[in-house]
Amino acid sequence: MTFSTVFINTPPPYLSLASDEVLPVVMTIAGSDSSGGAGVEADIKTISAHRCYAMSCITALTIQTPANVYGVHTTPKDVVSQILDVNLNDMKCNVIKTGMLTEDAIQALSKKLKELGANRPKLVVDPVLVATSGAPLADEKLVKLMKEELTHLADLLTPNIPECYKLIGHKVELKSLQDILDLAKEVSESTNCPNILVKGGHAPWNNESSSFITDVLYLANEQKFIVYKGHYIKTNNTHGTGCTLASAIASNLARDYSLPQSIYGAVEYVQNAVTIGCTVTKKHVTSNGPINHLYAVEIPLEKMVCDECFDAHEVVNHIPNEPSPVANDFFTYLITHPAVAPHWNSYVNHDFVKQVAQGTIAPKKFQFFIEQDYSYLVDYGKVYCIAASKAPNLDEVEKALAIVGNIRREMGEHENRLKEVFGVKDNSYFENIQKGPALKNYSRYFSDVAKRGNWQDLVTSLSPCLMGYGQALINHKDYVVKNEGNVYYEWCQVYSSTWYHEGMEKGKQLLNQIASTYPKENIEVLVNIYAQVCELETKFWDAALEFEG
Amino acid sequence: MTFSTVFINTPPPYLSLASDEVLPVVMTIAGSDSSGGAGVEADIKTISAHRCYAMSCITALTIQTPANVYGVHTTPKDVVSQILDVNLNDMKCNVIKTGMLTEDAIQALSKKLKELGANRPKLVVDPVLVATSGAPLADEKLVKLMKEELTHLADLLTPNIPECYKLIGHKVELKSLQDILDLAKEVSESTNCPNILVKGGHAPWNNESSSFITDVLYLANEQKFIVYKGHYIKTNNTHGTGCTLASAIASNLARDYSLPQSIYGAVEYVQNAVTIGCTVTKKHVTSNGPINHLYAVEIPLEKMVCDECFDAHEVVNHIPNEPSPVANDFFTYLITHPAVAPHWNSYVNHDFVKQVAQGTIAPKKFQFFIEQDYSYLVDYGKVYCIAASKAPNLDEVEKALAIVGNIRREMGEHENRLKEVFGVKDNSYFENIQKGPALKNYSRYFSDVAKRGNWQDLVTSLSPCLMGYGQALINHKDYVVKNEGNVYYEWCQVYSSTWYHEGMEKGKQLLNQIASTYPKENIEVLVNIYAQVCELETKFWDAALEFEG
Repeated sequence: MTFSTVFINTPPPYLSLASDEVLPVVMTIAGSDSSGGAGVEADIKTISAHRCYAMSCITALTIQTPANVYGVHTTPKDVVSQILDVNLNDMKCNVIKTGMLTEDAIQALSKKLKELGANRPKLVVDPVLVATSGAPLADEKLVKLMKEELTHLADLLTPNIPECYKLIGHKVELKSLQDILDLAKEVSESTNCPNILVKGGHAPWNNESSSFITDVLYLANEQKFIVYKGHYIKTNNTHGTGCTLASAIASNLARDYSLPQSIYGAVEYVQNAVTIGCTVTKKHVTSNGPINHLYAVEIPLEKMVCDECFDAHEVVNHIPNEPSPVANDFFTYLITHPAVAPHWNSYVNHDFVKQVAQGTIAPKKFQFFIEQDYSYLVDYGKVYCIAASKAPNLDEVEKALAIVGNIRREMGEHENRLKEVFGVKDNSYFENIQKGPALKNYSRYFSDVAKRGNWQDLVTSLSPCLMGYGQALINHKDYVVKNEGNVYYEWCQVYSSTWYHEGMEKGKQLLNQIASTYPKENIEVLVNIYAQVCELETKFWDAALEFEG
Repeated sequence: MTFSTVFINTPPPYLSLASDEVLPVVMTIAGSDSSGGAGVEADIKTISAHRCYAMSCITALTIQTPANVYGVHTTPKDVVSQILDVNLNDMKCNVIKTGMLTEDAIQALSKKLKELGANRPKLVVDPVLVATSGAPLADEKLVKLMKEELTHLADLLTPNIPECYKLIGHKVELKSLQDILDLAKEVSESTNCPNILVKGGHAPWNNESSSFITDVLYLANEQKFIVYKGHYIKTNNTHGTGCTLASAIASNLARDYSLPQSIYGAVEYVQNAVTIGCTVTKKHVTSNGPINHLYAVEIPLEKMVCDECFDAHEVVNHIPNEPSPVANDFFTYLITHPAVAPHWNSYVNHDFVKQVAQGTIAPKKFQFFIEQDYSYLVDYGKVYCIAASKAPNLDEVEKALAIVGNIRREMGEHENRLKEVFGVKDNSYFENIQKGPALKNYSRYFSDVAKRGNWQDLVTSLSPCLMGYGQALINHKDYVVKNEGNVYYEWCQVYSSTWYHEGMEKGKQLLNQIASTYPKENIEVLVNIYAQVCELETKFWDAALEFEG
């Protein structure tokens, strides 16, 4: 009988400095959704994803999946009361969040809150009266009891629009945003709760370019409205968004963010969880699937095996990656891939390069481009610093840092252009360049991939800038008007130079090295990155041509 | 009535590339622990912290906190059966994890698993028969039913030692590790389950220097044992470790890790969650508190406000930090702080420096130090690259990159020493330097603080190396034996040079800048970092003196 010993690594050292962490505590009082997408299950996932400690008081077991609610088993009143007592007696509790309540639960909670008086936790009430699908979940008696016993004790109510109607007892025609503001105010007055967040998820507005949704916060004591304008995401999977929003607000409040801040964070969290989404239902369940509460969670074992002091290689052996068949000419594979080609071609055949080559671009547009490119190169350099820190060996560290040196030189050339050609005098000019939307999106993409991606993802995201500028000048070489000393001609010469083309060849070899060390089955990740960055580059030149000053 | 509009930022771009993620699905069949530390609540937190999708089948509502189990409300058999049916019919399910089971639940689950036959999910059974506190949780009838109906269907059982006795029907005296191996085998034979993980948490072993715990995995089909040797952590708070371990194993299995790999990851996850811990109980609850399932979770709103395209500053305003009173001479504050002083003093008065100054150190010890320092400088340089990427402005980026240049030069000096003085011929020597434990721990600390810490945390962790080498040579200047061309003398001269002392002055100014921009109430974080790094530096020189070759 064989026998091997595996040593467990010590906890992450910097992280352990914060031991015995005082975690904010949130109690959810709601029904359990057995399939995990809504109710107490969604609340615990959300509260945990906000690094808060979740406790529960389960008001009913709902036997449900996104396909149907098959049955409900309610919790007796004495059990609800006893859970509230022991939880609030023995445990800290910063905020209580309520979801689906029974009459018993409303009475037990109201009694407990009155007992606690001023020491009671904050209270966020998600008045679960109508399901996201529109099905009624509570009768008039329960609505009446909620308004008599609970809503006046709440710090915030988060009704959807059908729930607003239930609370005020009648419908309202919503033709404009003002109608929603009035509705929020009426709900506040009818429920005696000073703060109302009307969730607009059911009623997207459209303007020329996009659809958006508005969640309206009414703050009675400040006589103020805040309208949260978010993106309407076309998806079938929104099961549990209401529970998730209220739990996220409760978690942020538990961490002492203000109400407006807490709601901002919760709305963006839900929007991200809906956009990124997940697939967990069987094929016959085609709609109303859950959202992805875990979109920012890292997989523990993936981190453990990369740790310097990890010592269990015998048990947790690395499965060597088989090199991908595209590794011999990965650059060509990428730019001819159907997902990349349209963006690569719009990028390297861009009219901006043609106008610069011909010398016909308006000086103010070219100055705008140089300014934005200068500011872009600071971020580009920072990402290469992160690439250096993630590089597999000293050689790659040095190559990355050599490129940072080239980037610094390129910035120097931009400084000269802006001073000599565009009359910039004062050096503080460079620190105060205002980033346009195209640049902001590009820098934001870089920082996200640099933070979450591995070395290969990162180096792939840096490639289009190097390869595309060179290819664009190759594509437009017949338009270049020779004009020594002219800033446009001189710009074209930089990216047509032998030195730059040698850099492109190295860039191709690096891409082959990336493809040969990347898990074959995940190569699509690199394809998506290349497509996305070519699109960002295209928009960068679009912004320059559209610049009016 | 005033009215403002806040725009919600778009989801993180790189992250959104992975939309509609196929999340591994784990169903927990267990009791609910209302206070959130164990049972279904701990399972959902653990499964979510492993980026898996949790579903639940609640077998009972336990009214409990770490202080006491006040009551239990069991779920009727038909409700348990119906939940199993709908969850397994409508949802995917990779792994089922069981915790506290009632007789009803065992029968309902056994029936369902037999129905599913070969298509059934994997099954991890945590036989909750005896609480961590030692209190019995199940009678003989339930143990018998579990062995008849369930354990033979399980892929893994995770009993603690008292539960092993319940399963085999008698106690065993455990004097050596072999006794635990035999116990695991007996449990396997008695339960007809091929894989048994005997949790040793109750029986720490001691050798001269430390206490450790062993979890023993018995793999009947491979006739093999794997002993997981972990660190015994002195803490009162271990509530829910059993549930957490089984759920973590289930999550790793759901992600297709092997059984030995899944168990390694789970044991380290639980150990980290126990070590880092949390404070969520009221003062009168002095023991058995919960562990910290969320130790690696980032706070969403903290990340949102730093995003390039975040645009809700009016609502989520940054609260400017008041400069800390120690910001005028932060270096002196640090090295005289009671938490730092002992480690700083043992570092800068180290015998290693004295022996090098006197020229009496054994050449092989000095060579070992130079090798390890060369390898250390690669990591030190990488961390400065990350510091450059997190720097608040271009000026700080350039300062950090200038230091990377100095580090490269220092590595060059080490290369020369190793070649000219210690006869190294082949360049591959530098890539194959084996990191000793002291260096591994140091590099590991750097990568953890670089990943999770902010720019100030990071720069603070880089300071002791710069300041301590200079101070150590000041403290030992009277021992330095002048000996031009001698490698020891030349080493001392580098860190006593005016150039180096100028670097130290800049280092002090940078620390003041750090303290003036750091939240006053968190300054202890920087103190802990300084203390920890001085300790790591001290151990680095200890290792050189202890090196025998």
